[in-house]
Amino acid sequence: MDKVNLIEKFALFDEHWSPKIVGELNGQYVKLAKLKGEFVWHHHEAEDEFFLVVQGRMTIKLPDRDVHLEEGEFFIVPRGVEHKPVAVEEAHILMFEPVGTLNTGNVQDERTVQEIERL
Amino acid sequence: MDKVNLIEKFALFDEHWSPKIVGELNGQYVKLAKLKGEFVWHHHEAEDEFFLVVQGRMTIKLPDRDVHLEEGEFFIVPRGVEHKPVAVEEAHILMFEPVGTLNTGNVQDERTVQEIERL
Repeated sequence: MDKVNLIEKFALFDEHWSPKIVGELNGQYVKLAKLKGEFVWHHHEAEDEFFLVVQGRMTIKLPDRDVHLEEGEFFIVPRGVEHKPVAVEEAHILMFEPVGTLNTGNVQDERTVQEIERL
Repeated sequence: MDKVNLIEKFALFDEHWSPKIVGELNGQYVKLAKLKGEFVWHHHEAEDEFFLVVQGRMTIKLPDRDVHLEEGEFFIVPRGVEHKPVAVEEAHILMFEPVGTLNTGNVQDERTVQEIERL
């Protein structure tokens, strides 16, 4: 493979809430996503999910608290935990999660991405 | 778990070539390391290894080429591939690799870390 420059990859897409695959290792995907607005409450039955803010800021709403993430901060949502990502202004994030993880977890709605694009 | 601020975590240690665990998900560790100088040539039999430069720059020497990484760039070294990380000036990196991965892979030397510290 080649090296990946995050800024160059983020420049290749504009959609919000539509993760793109930029790497794969040990059965996990490295994904990039642009967020803006409020996502749906959901959980992942068997997958922990890693969110690192590369640009901007976001909030991960959990049942009992809100986790505010600035640039250079990450949070791991454990499997089974309900969460709702929110970004008031556009945020750019890097995610690690197992191959096969759906962005909306246990929920199917119009933002569910079945075929994830590779950049 | 709590969120992790990368800069705060990097401020907690000074050693070079001694990765620290800052997160765990899906059988993988998220690790931070400070690099300076030349590491040993090695490979990992069964683990792919993700290197993201958070600050500074580094080179990953491969048998057939050198991969130069700047801030905001990552590279995945596939399992089985010989590699030698080099950083002329101090570099701060984030790694993602399976639980159980040894920093020196198939090689044992004075820099091999058996018990990885959690920050």
